[in-house]
Amino acid sequence: MDAESDKITSGRPRRADSIFTATLELLADSGYDGLTMEAVAARAGVNKTTLYRWWKSKDEVLAAALTDSDLLAFEVPDTGSLRGDLVQTSRHIHTLLTDPATAPIAAAVLAAGPRRPALVAVGRTFFADRAEREHPIFRRAVDRGELPEHADPRSIMDMLAGAIWFRLFLRAEELRDEDLCAAVDLVLDGAAAH
Amino acid sequence: MDAESDKITSGRPRRADSIFTATLELLADSGYDGLTMEAVAARAGVNKTTLYRWWKSKDEVLAAALTDSDLLAFEVPDTGSLRGDLVQTSRHIHTLLTDPATAPIAAAVLAAGPRRPALVAVGRTFFADRAEREHPIFRRAVDRGELPEHADPRSIMDMLAGAIWFRLFLRAEELRDEDLCAAVDLVLDGAAAH
Repeated sequence: MDAESDKITSGRPRRADSIFTATLELLADSGYDGLTMEAVAARAGVNKTTLYRWWKSKDEVLAAALTDSDLLAFEVPDTGSLRGDLVQTSRHIHTLLTDPATAPIAAAVLAAGPRRPALVAVGRTFFADRAEREHPIFRRAVDRGELPEHADPRSIMDMLAGAIWFRLFLRAEELRDEDLCAAVDLVLDGAAAH
Repeated sequence: MDAESDKITSGRPRRADSIFTATLELLADSGYDGLTMEAVAARAGVNKTTLYRWWKSKDEVLAAALTDSDLLAFEVPDTGSLRGDLVQTSRHIHTLLTDPATAPIAAAVLAAGPRRPALVAVGRTFFADRAEREHPIFRRAVDRGELPEHADPRSIMDMLAGAIWFRLFLRAEELRDEDLCAAVDLVLDGAAAH
């Protein structure tokens, strides 16, 4: 592969999708420790020099894969109501965590755990990116009067995403669609007797 | 050590606390894969035969350690209000996940992840035990009219515990006491504009 074939296409290498897919598959198969620049290059069928031209380390390519790969693409819902948007977002999270194509990636990120600071930084990048994409959901909800001005989108998403992670990975139980809807109702309406 | 010294004290061996501590320390130090009956026996200073007399496998001794060890003991709060009880419970979860004595245990359980079905079963036992202990909090709240009859304690705890896990382990951020109180307010009162 010559330098010409690596020409920039909208700020990333031509073969970025293959590289991202290879990165996420390796993470899922071998865990964070098994992920190396060499293995990514081999699996994606690109030169190691090509890879290093764009990303300095496996953490950089992993961060890019988590935020930019087609596999984890996140279409921000706009259903006309906050409740509808949060149900769609919960379904998306649930699918990411249970679909055979993506669940092993989530499990690997989780399994890497807090002992690996580099991966923690990558996770931060991922969740910050998601938060930014989700922001319009909450801005529109405030505009429609569904949320008070001072509402904290992060706390709402921590609860929804946290409850889904907790049920699936720690309780090791399944969630039905009605459970996801009930979780949205709970975080919006609260558990207390009114 | 002769058989006499292993006599039952309230349904468990005399040295149960040493065994549980050894089990949890090994899990924290070496992860689930490094936890073996041999290593537990050696660290606790008991015979392997003593260990096997009580527990058939490392999963059995780990399940017992998670529910019965002094290290993870859980005093069910009774503050007089549901809000107060949930704040105390959230503080307890937060301490378990951040205290240097217990955080590595939580990290090891988390890192074992969904690929290890035996540990998943152990985790289930742990959370079922916690749920049973927390039950009076919710029963009293219904009696006091703070929760509707149909309230689901598990969903409330999934949200609270899930939000704490998510913030600490996935976002890798700290939680202040006021964040814990705000989380309880959110799950009780809801995010929606009233």
